[in-house]
Amino acid sequence: MAEFQKTAFNKINRSPNRATYNKDEVYEILDSHFICHASYVYQGTAISIPTGYGRHGDTIYLHGALKNRMLLSLLDADKVSLSVTHLDGLVMARSVFHHSFNYRSAIVFGKARLIEDREEKNEALKVITENIIPGRWDEARQPNDNELKITAVVAIDIEEASAKIRTGPPSDDAEDYDLDIWAGVLPLQVIPGKPVSDEALKKPLPISNSALDFSWD
Amino acid sequence: MAEFQKTAFNKINRSPNRATYNKDEVYEILDSHFICHASYVYQGTAISIPTGYGRHGDTIYLHGALKNRMLLSLLDADKVSLSVTHLDGLVMARSVFHHSFNYRSAIVFGKARLIEDREEKNEALKVITENIIPGRWDEARQPNDNELKITAVVAIDIEEASAKIRTGPPSDDAEDYDLDIWAGVLPLQVIPGKPVSDEALKKPLPISNSALDFSWD
Repeated sequence: MAEFQKTAFNKINRSPNRATYNKDEVYEILDSHFICHASYVYQGTAISIPTGYGRHGDTIYLHGALKNRMLLSLLDADKVSLSVTHLDGLVMARSVFHHSFNYRSAIVFGKARLIEDREEKNEALKVITENIIPGRWDEARQPNDNELKITAVVAIDIEEASAKIRTGPPSDDAEDYDLDIWAGVLPLQVIPGKPVSDEALKKPLPISNSALDFSWD
Repeated sequence: MAEFQKTAFNKINRSPNRATYNKDEVYEILDSHFICHASYVYQGTAISIPTGYGRHGDTIYLHGALKNRMLLSLLDADKVSLSVTHLDGLVMARSVFHHSFNYRSAIVFGKARLIEDREEKNEALKVITENIIPGRWDEARQPNDNELKITAVVAIDIEEASAKIRTGPPSDDAEDYDLDIWAGVLPLQVIPGKPVSDEALKKPLPISNSALDFSWD
């Protein structure tokens, strides 16, 4: 499947020219981020909570404490959604009305299931860790039996998805181009700072490669 | 009111030591961001959509097209929620298990209402614009009657709210401090790039002060 089917859930009605249902494009947005907003219904109200994730194939993995309300609510639902948002810039038009953002956002829908098999759990945690900081899994002390036992790991098989992408300069009304108002784009980027070593290190250790090599995209 | 009351909605159960219900702290998180994830229920499924916002007093303003499904759904709900998330760093522990993020996240709950008065609408759009790019409202061409007419502006009066903040180094299990594994924090920051002038500018214009003065925090 190269394209997700449009459904009542994933179909983008506002600015459809910015929409994509292409699987590669949606997955590229998912893979270049690692925090999603996972949404659940609590007493009739929709709530979204930021949480780390990783993707393997058509599956997204989340994790948390066993009694985490968000995870338990996701598991209870027939269909859940996750939103991933990159903010790439401020689009400064001549008119306030045409101000916008450059962004890449994706939304995925699917059914959540609890992973109980020890090996599958461990693999899912590796997928999440490696999506956040590539290379860190092999540097750090990997999860032991007790840590695996007290961690809930949830898989969401992606059934519907779409993305919305805006790039480029502002688009003003024709008559506004004559105004003496500067217009353009202010790019925004997430930049890693210098790694800060834990003061509790018992002896000087070189900074891990995963920290030195980390880049946002 | 200096503190929000804890309710079933805003009470933080995971890592309660990182929770705050202090109004000033919650509002500081809201005011240092301008994209929230607004959550609504569609056919039983919770969906969250990124959107710009601004705060004035105890009210958050959102805007969009008149038929925007997210805004219409918010207006239909008895109680809605908005999430705001700052990602400040990757917390790299010795164990995979204790890896975490440094972050400041806030969630607010309230009832959404449509703003129909022309002046109130205009003021709300000013609040949103100035929260995103301080100074831009007076530089740009302000909304005309038709633009105000075709824009839906929604106010959410904040009734419940809380925030969760993590700062500082990793926290490992006592026995792991003897491992020869580097641990620390990789700070992450949103940095504005150089403003890119619209190629469609009819004559060279100096870059607007709002773009030159912009900083994330």
